[in-house]
Amino acid sequence: MGERGIGNCIGVVGLGLMGSSIIVSFLRAGYRVIALTPLLEELEIGTIRIREQLDLCAKMGLLPEKVDFFFDRYEVTADYGLLQQCGLVVECVIEIETIKKQVYELVEDHVFENTVIATNTSAIPISNLQKYLKYPQRFMGIHWAEPAYATRFLEITCGAATSVIIAEMIRDEAENWGKEPTLLYKDIRGFITNRLMYAVYREGFALINKGCISMAGLDKCFQHDMGAWVTLMGIFRRMDFMGLQDYLKTYHHLFPKLSNRQDVPQQMEEILEKGGRGIHNLTGLYPHTEDSVRKLEQDFSNFNEEIYHLSDRYRKKLNDLNL
Amino acid sequence: MGERGIGNCIGVVGLGLMGSSIIVSFLRAGYRVIALTPLLEELEIGTIRIREQLDLCAKMGLLPEKVDFFFDRYEVTADYGLLQQCGLVVECVIEIETIKKQVYELVEDHVFENTVIATNTSAIPISNLQKYLKYPQRFMGIHWAEPAYATRFLEITCGAATSVIIAEMIRDEAENWGKEPTLLYKDIRGFITNRLMYAVYREGFALINKGCISMAGLDKCFQHDMGAWVTLMGIFRRMDFMGLQDYLKTYHHLFPKLSNRQDVPQQMEEILEKGGRGIHNLTGLYPHTEDSVRKLEQDFSNFNEEIYHLSDRYRKKLNDLNL
Repeated sequence: MGERGIGNCIGVVGLGLMGSSIIVSFLRAGYRVIALTPLLEELEIGTIRIREQLDLCAKMGLLPEKVDFFFDRYEVTADYGLLQQCGLVVECVIEIETIKKQVYELVEDHVFENTVIATNTSAIPISNLQKYLKYPQRFMGIHWAEPAYATRFLEITCGAATSVIIAEMIRDEAENWGKEPTLLYKDIRGFITNRLMYAVYREGFALINKGCISMAGLDKCFQHDMGAWVTLMGIFRRMDFMGLQDYLKTYHHLFPKLSNRQDVPQQMEEILEKGGRGIHNLTGLYPHTEDSVRKLEQDFSNFNEEIYHLSDRYRKKLNDLNL
Repeated sequence: MGERGIGNCIGVVGLGLMGSSIIVSFLRAGYRVIALTPLLEELEIGTIRIREQLDLCAKMGLLPEKVDFFFDRYEVTADYGLLQQCGLVVECVIEIETIKKQVYELVEDHVFENTVIATNTSAIPISNLQKYLKYPQRFMGIHWAEPAYATRFLEITCGAATSVIIAEMIRDEAENWGKEPTLLYKDIRGFITNRLMYAVYREGFALINKGCISMAGLDKCFQHDMGAWVTLMGIFRRMDFMGLQDYLKTYHHLFPKLSNRQDVPQQMEEILEKGGRGIHNLTGLYPHTEDSVRKLEQDFSNFNEEIYHLSDRYRKKLNDLNL
């Protein structure tokens, strides 16, 4: 390994939407990338996807060089042998355990013993996948948000057999990826943000189903209350900001009232039973039309760009406060 | 009442920070305001506070007219008789039930039977306070976020005896206040966002106390994951956006694992026992210094202004989608 701990070359296996946007985030950060697809039919479409995402990234003003500069800094290939030069290999293939197992075997056959291997899974526990590794201590989860090149979020998750030292090295390295990496020392289901969000869903559905508020009303509340501060300070720093003294009383009277239900909310079950895929097949919790979906997607793309730049202006200052 | 349902004049009782920023939000929206303080010593400081907040509001570009224009559109007084001209009176006094009771009695002695009376309480159930009213059907909670003139959040809460028709009229009226009002049909403890946030705190503390992640790490996750979309779409529209299909499986395996604890997290209890008031006495969940607090407050003031304008550019489009 070079000075950077993982050297200057990173391998990414799997060139779906997520894989290609992860590749672009590494290119943006100055790495060379071996873009490997085990699917021959993905070689061509993968190349196109990376170009498209590079263009999007450039359009947002996030590339330190012109797009052309990056064209010879990645190689799209089906040859696992090229991974040998990589200090880190990130697996982004389909969420099927047997396929991931095959990928790890092939990767381990071709890389050095100290090459770090990571999975982008959000569905399978890291400790389960880790069992397929010959050298499991160098294996961990690295979980991006979409689009990977224009989001700060990054969860690095240790499996039961992961070396914490190696995971901390990757976390420190990830600071150079334009990320705000966080390290999960234990491989908990759902990682962090999913756990927190499901706690919100549970309480949210309970309030809706008690007739306290409509779904659109609840969304509005959260958008305009939490939305006004969470990007700046998270939830616990917000408590300090508000002064703490009212929380204890509220804890005492509110905690016993929160929903502890374990069953799936009925309206979710019904929508999913009829094959609901939200905006993707116009069947979801809200009514959607092709037109409204197009607008929402465009809005999100624009909003994401704006909030990314907005949070960037504050995060450096806030990181100083974290010391 | 005039065409607007509550006429053009609103009374606000209590000129603390919150009261004065609520007054400014009404002035901004074009109402005349009777700013009433039951505390003689607050008459002068209340006037100064309103001026200061008008200036801040103007600085953000939120006033439709020059500051001077508003100077004769409000009257600071200790005379409850002036409330007679108000179609709505909002109580913002200290969170002590006996004091609020006195205020309601005085207000009801001076206003018409159909004048709407609201409380800004976040601590006392609306149904409890409602008992002190002669005409309880016209009483409800209206809950702002600070600073009231530069936030969209507004929860309108029915008590057990509130007329839903009157509450809906106030909700519709509040659309003209530059707000995104939501109506809670039932008077639940903590209202909506507090309930949702305490569900997050419960799970968050559980994860921290299990050694999964640090507090700063958890905040970072939430800031950069949720922060990247919540202002745009809330939580349930986000589910539709992501496509729903993965949620059912996650529900099944995650719900049984979420924390159901009812006790106050130990670190909260410890800090509060030693009188911790977060940034206000430099004793909180995070370390703070006078310098870091000054920076955080300045950052929040700037951030709030930016996110307010940012969300404004999207909310109109999104409201169209809500139809």
